[in-house]
Amino acid sequence: MTADAGGQPGAGAGRRGGEGGRRGGGRRDADQRPAGRRGTGRPAGDSGTREAIGEAARAQFADFGYHGATIRGIAAVAGVDPALVHHYYGTKEALFAAAMRLPIVPSEVLTAALSGGAPGEPGFGAHLVRTALTLWESDELKETFLGLLRSAVTSEQAAVMLREFISDSILGTLARVAGLERQGSHAEAEYRAAMVATQMLGLALTRLVLGLPVVAGASVDELAATVGPSVDRYLCGDLDLPGGVSGAPPG
Amino acid sequence: MTADAGGQPGAGAGRRGGEGGRRGGGRRDADQRPAGRRGTGRPAGDSGTREAIGEAARAQFADFGYHGATIRGIAAVAGVDPALVHHYYGTKEALFAAAMRLPIVPSEVLTAALSGGAPGEPGFGAHLVRTALTLWESDELKETFLGLLRSAVTSEQAAVMLREFISDSILGTLARVAGLERQGSHAEAEYRAAMVATQMLGLALTRLVLGLPVVAGASVDELAATVGPSVDRYLCGDLDLPGGVSGAPPG
Repeated sequence: MTADAGGQPGAGAGRRGGEGGRRGGGRRDADQRPAGRRGTGRPAGDSGTREAIGEAARAQFADFGYHGATIRGIAAVAGVDPALVHHYYGTKEALFAAAMRLPIVPSEVLTAALSGGAPGEPGFGAHLVRTALTLWESDELKETFLGLLRSAVTSEQAAVMLREFISDSILGTLARVAGLERQGSHAEAEYRAAMVATQMLGLALTRLVLGLPVVAGASVDELAATVGPSVDRYLCGDLDLPGGVSGAPPG
Repeated sequence: MTADAGGQPGAGAGRRGGEGGRRGGGRRDADQRPAGRRGTGRPAGDSGTREAIGEAARAQFADFGYHGATIRGIAAVAGVDPALVHHYYGTKEALFAAAMRLPIVPSEVLTAALSGGAPGEPGFGAHLVRTALTLWESDELKETFLGLLRSAVTSEQAAVMLREFISDSILGTLARVAGLERQGSHAEAEYRAAMVATQMLGLALTRLVLGLPVVAGASVDELAATVGPSVDRYLCGDLDLPGGVSGAPPG
């Protein structure tokens, strides 16, 4: 899904705080391990290059969307070799996360959090809800997450960027980790993952942005218990799927 | 829920276009019928008063939220008798709708749309999804609805206003029309209606604002078929309710 960045998961850097053991994970390749984003104890030259790449990435993602921006294009704007972009940031997704000032790489967190279970197992949906809410509400992520949501709601350009990122990275990862393509066609996996997004982003909107009293007042565990089964149903329940989705042969 | 406005449903004015037969409804009281919001063929004095009230309402709702703003306070700012506010706009909700330039009064549309069915009946949730999407996507409402969502996401003041309006008017109406308080406690009815909101507003966010391809590309009927059962489950399914909600005695 992030083919032009080499598709190495686990190459993101600088995850911090929050849920502890559940975070992070994903395999790491020592040769590809990026230089980190904390910016401490690094020579000024390196740090300057990293920042120039980050700046270029922010501009290119905004101008061309998540699909359209390329590691090659970002490297050209930053005036560096594309290999340096990979060196500092790893994957395209990790670069996007860094450019958006996300302290984590979403697909890695999702992969790590969900690798212990499987859809259809009791509590999988609840675990997904709990993981997402805990992450969104963490001190490190909350403002950035709300900022992304705000910019997407107010700027068409930002909406395109976030839409493509969610579609490619988050929903693609969810479909993969949840094994959706083993159950059905690619189109069905996409549709199921998107339905999960309608529920999860609605939870974010009503709890974190609007602050509807009942939703904001419930605990993460309470919401996970109530909403989890809806997520389970979207992931592997017996859905009334659109014709174009259900008709396709299994993946 | 809108006690200080006399609580007469059906007193809103100026509904237009869109879903036709399903819209409108709610009982009307000829004595209380407001003067309409179309502003055509009205004496200049009346129209000036109406507009002054509308202006005052916009300011008071923004300053004090949906709860805090009162018909009395709005009348004072507009320099008119509170009875005139009722005369022109009917209920507090209808005044809010007019002030927000909504071409409909949400609780009336909801009441009319859902009065034909009952939760637990096959297809009730799907009908609710279809009604909401059709309304949000109508030419008359789409921009206003997106504008409200945008302002709530970017302004804390607007978020408070929208939150209170959704909690009081929309969710209160949903709980009433769906007969939720006949099934369980008031707290349970509130919780169930709020869970419906997490799903429905997530659908609005992903389809209308973010435009996630799969969600935006599906038809209203397809989404209703997939999402409807989740709504049914929130309304009358066997939920794992928070302790403080499920423990309360029925009705």
